[in-house]
Amino acid sequence: MTIAPLAALSREPAQLYLGIDGGGTKCRACLVDGRGEVLGEGMGGSANAFVNLQMTQDSIVTAARQALASAGLGERHLSALRVGAGLAGVNVPNAAKTMQEWQHPFAQFEVVSDLHAACLGAHEGRNGRVIVLGTGSCGASLVDGHLRLLGGHGLTLGDQASGAWFGREAIAAALLAQDGLSPITEITHALKQQAIKGFGEPVSDWVSFMQGRSTADFARLSPAVFIAANLGDATATAIIKRAAHYVDALALTLSPKSEPSLPLAFVGGLMPFIRPWLSEPLQQAEIAAAYPPEIGVLFLDALDRL
Amino acid sequence: MTIAPLAALSREPAQLYLGIDGGGTKCRACLVDGRGEVLGEGMGGSANAFVNLQMTQDSIVTAARQALASAGLGERHLSALRVGAGLAGVNVPNAAKTMQEWQHPFAQFEVVSDLHAACLGAHEGRNGRVIVLGTGSCGASLVDGHLRLLGGHGLTLGDQASGAWFGREAIAAALLAQDGLSPITEITHALKQQAIKGFGEPVSDWVSFMQGRSTADFARLSPAVFIAANLGDATATAIIKRAAHYVDALALTLSPKSEPSLPLAFVGGLMPFIRPWLSEPLQQAEIAAAYPPEIGVLFLDALDRL
Repeated sequence: MTIAPLAALSREPAQLYLGIDGGGTKCRACLVDGRGEVLGEGMGGSANAFVNLQMTQDSIVTAARQALASAGLGERHLSALRVGAGLAGVNVPNAAKTMQEWQHPFAQFEVVSDLHAACLGAHEGRNGRVIVLGTGSCGASLVDGHLRLLGGHGLTLGDQASGAWFGREAIAAALLAQDGLSPITEITHALKQQAIKGFGEPVSDWVSFMQGRSTADFARLSPAVFIAANLGDATATAIIKRAAHYVDALALTLSPKSEPSLPLAFVGGLMPFIRPWLSEPLQQAEIAAAYPPEIGVLFLDALDRL
Repeated sequence: MTIAPLAALSREPAQLYLGIDGGGTKCRACLVDGRGEVLGEGMGGSANAFVNLQMTQDSIVTAARQALASAGLGERHLSALRVGAGLAGVNVPNAAKTMQEWQHPFAQFEVVSDLHAACLGAHEGRNGRVIVLGTGSCGASLVDGHLRLLGGHGLTLGDQASGAWFGREAIAAALLAQDGLSPITEITHALKQQAIKGFGEPVSDWVSFMQGRSTADFARLSPAVFIAANLGDATATAIIKRAAHYVDALALTLSPKSEPSLPLAFVGGLMPFIRPWLSEPLQQAEIAAAYPPEIGVLFLDALDRL
């Protein structure tokens, strides 16, 4: 397989490039040559530069070795690789700095945030917007190499319209109804139907059950809101409308005034659920992401500047 | 000083009673005799039965010894004390059970939740409602010895209108404005003026600054919302109106249908701020709490049943 827009960059045909997409649970590697030909793929462990730096570096090298092996290339090619990595956690300045100073085993190592990589991939290195609606939420625009990040901020202070946010709003609504402070809602019933351990218990036990849970655990409950809304539940509909309003505002704010219709791609597992609730203009503006982040980083200009 | 309604219980005049109010930071003790005469006071360390059981028991004994000493009574009176304790954390069933099974050094030891004690104290042991608006929020009603608890649930899933909730909403609003997703609000300015370390930094640094902070840290930021609202800020006003709506619903739901105007007392440091925003009927219904929780527990019927 050839990545056509990479082929168009007229790089040295024999040069090896490796793209890395590093997240909290795993990291993916994609090996291409200067003609954009995909030669191999690899996988490594967790690669969140903020959470664990050593592990991140180990995971990247593991994924690189695997990608070389899957291409039938020996370990000695490691030192010839020009590597671009999009990593979770490098939005924290200290983590980014340490990754940049890494005594890596490659010919070159360039690091950007996972969102930057997603943006490059979605729009083949061209200007565009990306909104991520997964366990968390955030948005980015990339205009003439300048990345702008919006939203995020985590579940406590932000991450509106994310899976974890929907899960939290669902339980909070169920608790309000349980206390008799708001009308009974289909959300409670939908949560009980999620067949997630702990939700067979009385609603009053859900608080201690969710104590200390991860955002991924909260995100697992998000379907309850959409199931309830599809049954016409007013509380669920109000939650989704708040989320859709946030996504609309995020998309609008990500476009510079000079380019109001910057191409927009959505990524993340929540999109199939929330898409029908987004405003008509937003649904119209959406384009499918062209490539995943591990190919996105291969569009980095810096990889041609060694 | 004599607690008149305790004097009215016609207990054995020479019998010693000790009331304990135990919270996360300290515990207070109040020593009275059977005529309701206050003989002494004491203070102990942290007494949250869910967080640290051993510490809770130590703190109670320390406070009891201090109260005896301040009354000029020797340690040998410890074993004659009938002790009522209102403790944080005993709403967790396991913590309550272990406290009940405690091999205590007293003649009698009765334990109820801190909210139960607050309710007893506010209404001199008679039927009534209490709403707590402090770092957290919750409500309780006590009708013919039956306690009903509503709300709470912690900052992630509940605790609406609490100090921590206001602090979190304040930062979330400042972040939305910073991202350009909502109009600039006076809340940002008010937060910067709070002279709390970390809030001199750019708004974008507030997320990492608040990472892992306690609910007390969030609650410390709550005045920013009220300061902004008093300057006419629409975002701040909307936050307070949501909170006031919650408190109204909580108060209404706490009254049984048979007794819609059950006496209502508010406790907690947030009340002076939020009081002017509550509905007219609620402001009219409010009565001042008669006694603090460490005196409230002395109204427990069980203390006369040895």
